[in-house]
Amino acid sequence: MTYCVAMRLKDGLLFASDSRTNAGVDHIATFRKMHVFEVPGERTIIILTAGNLATTQSVINLLQARTQQELHHLLNVNSLYEAAILVGETAREVVSRDSQGSGNVSMSQGVDFGGSFIVGGQIRGEAPRLFNVYPQCNFIEASEDTPYFQIGESKYGKPILDRVIQYDTPLEQALKCMLISFDSTIRSNLSVGLPIDVLRCKTDAFSKVKPYRIEENNAWFNRTRKAWSTGLRKVFGQIPEADWFDQL
Amino acid sequence: MTYCVAMRLKDGLLFASDSRTNAGVDHIATFRKMHVFEVPGERTIIILTAGNLATTQSVINLLQARTQQELHHLLNVNSLYEAAILVGETAREVVSRDSQGSGNVSMSQGVDFGGSFIVGGQIRGEAPRLFNVYPQCNFIEASEDTPYFQIGESKYGKPILDRVIQYDTPLEQALKCMLISFDSTIRSNLSVGLPIDVLRCKTDAFSKVKPYRIEENNAWFNRTRKAWSTGLRKVFGQIPEADWFDQL
Repeated sequence: MTYCVAMRLKDGLLFASDSRTNAGVDHIATFRKMHVFEVPGERTIIILTAGNLATTQSVINLLQARTQQELHHLLNVNSLYEAAILVGETAREVVSRDSQGSGNVSMSQGVDFGGSFIVGGQIRGEAPRLFNVYPQCNFIEASEDTPYFQIGESKYGKPILDRVIQYDTPLEQALKCMLISFDSTIRSNLSVGLPIDVLRCKTDAFSKVKPYRIEENNAWFNRTRKAWSTGLRKVFGQIPEADWFDQL
Repeated sequence: MTYCVAMRLKDGLLFASDSRTNAGVDHIATFRKMHVFEVPGERTIIILTAGNLATTQSVINLLQARTQQELHHLLNVNSLYEAAILVGETAREVVSRDSQGSGNVSMSQGVDFGGSFIVGGQIRGEAPRLFNVYPQCNFIEASEDTPYFQIGESKYGKPILDRVIQYDTPLEQALKCMLISFDSTIRSNLSVGLPIDVLRCKTDAFSKVKPYRIEENNAWFNRTRKAWSTGLRKVFGQIPEADWFDQL
């Protein structure tokens, strides 16, 4: 399983992905479930992947290979919108190829071939943008009202995001919230685990980006997990018990 | 959608279910997604239901009707284990009946006929017991290590249960935790909503039980939701931001 979150906030874009699986393509500027396509000075495109690993690996491989082979690819599309189309088309192509001969594309032999993708970043001439590409290969774009997307094992970590994240949340706080969301997910689901890759895409910077990796020994993350757990228990302890308990 | 939780703790059994849907059987001692089968002085059996409403309603209806019509039914089985078998068998019968002619039982025409059930309570001669009956109609029993079950939209509300609930958690605290778990679920998923039915099954009491209903105007629940939200934000605010933020 996988857990990925990305946010498009007033102050910029933030991305985070777990990386419990060891499988992953090993290519320029790719980092497990976080994949970077960039042209310094001109564009930064980050793709997070979840779902069927055979599908998502193939999609990333094809997207990378085609930057050398085809006329129209991620390093020259005119907008993030076109990048999202390209990711969706490539996913559709891979699922269609891999499920050939199956009666039912998405469920053949009980295997779900679908992949989910978050596509975000900035291309010179546009503001930063963020898209969520569904397993059906269509997609939606983040807005000020809905500034974040999750893919993979998203439900355990959603309540804290819902409580904290607004479009104008400062990035430092948003990062902290993102990682508390990872903590909740990791505690409730063994298939999501460290290390976590974190990336910030600075608005109008177009500089080379490098994910920061949170390993088991990250002192801040460990302190934060502990402080959050202690704090939650304290708040819980301070809330009075139901005054109607005796009616039960 | 639905959210139901039940716990078998040292001090007794607790049950809670939302009731956003208005559909429901209207029969003696049945309360929306919480259904009671009882013989005062002898047995108390509580069933919580989630999943396909046509299936779960039919299962409850058949279970009720058969207490008058058949030799072997919920009001005379010898153990909660047999009650769980009976619920599973009845669910299998209903799904099989309703999906007749479909090529694929659980997914015909895209409809999932499956239902989930929590079956708990006490029959004289046994300790209180709690079972989780899966859509596949097999089931597991709660233990001291795993003292609670959820069915329906369970993930949003699981982190707080994981952090607080132990076998020896006092019932008042467990109830508070249960309802904070409902709060998280209700905030993140519009399809789960008030009122919430809550029931406590006292060990060795075998007295008639009556669910307590939490409506929109429940003062304690509203204060608790607010205190939890404020408390979480305070704890969040007190945790220092990542000291490596500038490396991003």
